[in-house]
Amino acid sequence: MAEVKIVEVGLRDGLQNEPAMLSAELKRELISRLAEAGVKHLEVTSFVHPKWIPQLSDADLVASNLPDLPVTYRALVPNRQGLERALKTGVDEYAVFMSASDTHNRKNINKSMKETLPVLKEVVDLAHQEGKRIRGYVSTVFGCPYEGEVPVKTVAWLCEHLLQMGVYEISLGDTIGVAAPQEVKQKLNELLTVLPASRLAGHFHDTRGTGLANAYVCLEAGVHTLDTSFGGLGGCPYAPGAAGNLATEDLVYMLERSGVKTGIDLNRLCETSLYVQKHLNKPLPSKFLKSYAAERKKQKEGQ
Amino acid sequence: MAEVKIVEVGLRDGLQNEPAMLSAELKRELISRLAEAGVKHLEVTSFVHPKWIPQLSDADLVASNLPDLPVTYRALVPNRQGLERALKTGVDEYAVFMSASDTHNRKNINKSMKETLPVLKEVVDLAHQEGKRIRGYVSTVFGCPYEGEVPVKTVAWLCEHLLQMGVYEISLGDTIGVAAPQEVKQKLNELLTVLPASRLAGHFHDTRGTGLANAYVCLEAGVHTLDTSFGGLGGCPYAPGAAGNLATEDLVYMLERSGVKTGIDLNRLCETSLYVQKHLNKPLPSKFLKSYAAERKKQKEGQ
Repeated sequence: MAEVKIVEVGLRDGLQNEPAMLSAELKRELISRLAEAGVKHLEVTSFVHPKWIPQLSDADLVASNLPDLPVTYRALVPNRQGLERALKTGVDEYAVFMSASDTHNRKNINKSMKETLPVLKEVVDLAHQEGKRIRGYVSTVFGCPYEGEVPVKTVAWLCEHLLQMGVYEISLGDTIGVAAPQEVKQKLNELLTVLPASRLAGHFHDTRGTGLANAYVCLEAGVHTLDTSFGGLGGCPYAPGAAGNLATEDLVYMLERSGVKTGIDLNRLCETSLYVQKHLNKPLPSKFLKSYAAERKKQKEGQ
Repeated sequence: MAEVKIVEVGLRDGLQNEPAMLSAELKRELISRLAEAGVKHLEVTSFVHPKWIPQLSDADLVASNLPDLPVTYRALVPNRQGLERALKTGVDEYAVFMSASDTHNRKNINKSMKETLPVLKEVVDLAHQEGKRIRGYVSTVFGCPYEGEVPVKTVAWLCEHLLQMGVYEISLGDTIGVAAPQEVKQKLNELLTVLPASRLAGHFHDTRGTGLANAYVCLEAGVHTLDTSFGGLGGCPYAPGAAGNLATEDLVYMLERSGVKTGIDLNRLCETSLYVQKHLNKPLPSKFLKSYAAERKKQKEGQ
């Protein structure tokens, strides 16, 4: 486990589930602070229609004012129109998304999985024409809120299509945070018979507390790219009040404790999470963050 | 992974770190509710000197009024005096404890590890004379708040002594919640060269969010007994405000999702945690519980 790539998705996947609106100025400040903490891969926003996700309706502004820092900036694009907006900004690379279950895909994109593939191909082709890399997200890999169990064969079929299309990496999403490590291990083993581990990423939500265990299983299986959000920012649209994405802090702690250098300064990362927590006016769910905040408070009281 | 033994330690290890005092009557109610939810192994209190842990100063009362239910009741006993008190109550079995680091052991017991062993032997012998089983707890297995790293050889040496003494099981405690799964795997592998997996249990604190991943690693290594607390009750005396023991809910969810029948009804367990949460007047840290509470609230609002 020499190297692990951590993709910070808090500003996109995290914020899109937060009701308290943050200004584009504050988002820029957060981007700077995350970069200063050592984050190298940062998904900053989503170019979906502004009406869909009001929190990210400032995508053009945010993505046009990115600080000049040694960070790879990425934005989500749902379709050609989204990519065309994104291409006018300073974002380095893009990502397309779809679900591994038809019902979830229809609710999100209003198309079946099969109908979605050509739409994404058009986006991927255009990104490549512009010399840009593009990632793929597959949602509901470990369960769908409407259909329940999602066959691993469907996931494999979808991933093969996306790789053929030219996405450089596929992030396997446990969108509703139901996965347990035993099934992640089993499903990854099946997927890895047809897909290379180096092209996969794990994207877990900590809705039921299994996020870090699932990430551990990914690492053991050779999948060394993981998506996380600082402070565990985010939530679940199907269970408002539940925890969000796997927290960057919790993953970084696990890795550093295991001798894997992440390049991320946990103290600075926690300070950034405490900073956004103040603006969101709610405690963020990362357990490492809570422990950090408790120790900091104790130290201050002892002074 | 056919069977997993879950030892509910919330009423002892959990409550001993909670400042809000609960009555003996309420504790009896919690015991009944936990048993009704399907908990089979329940540590109910500790017979340490009443001054040490005010929350458990009602040990004699609690342990003398245990509901007649199909549950194995256990109490912690620090020494001969503690066991003599416990023997007058309705508790089925006992547990002794010590640390795997001298400094932590001295701070807790005022003795070196070597000096502690004969004290524990006396307790184990007396329990056996009374026809009672006795468990051993080893604290600071994965790190000591005073000494830092704890050599796995010291842990192995201690466990061998405790097993020779006749304890039927040893619970390996990550007392300050620092362990990461990679090191748990490595240390267990070393310990299992000299100790049988069937005599070991994993006892994790979720201070930094790694509890469930560590439990998963135990199961993979063949250690199928795990200590948890309902709702994730508890805390860390070294970081007040941090999370407590690994939550029973989170473990049960992971197991049931993986096809392991625990016999525990997650809904009833969560209702019990929400009930104690009201009395403690603070949110409990279990992420599964938060997700359950969020869904319940959503359903109620939808009615």
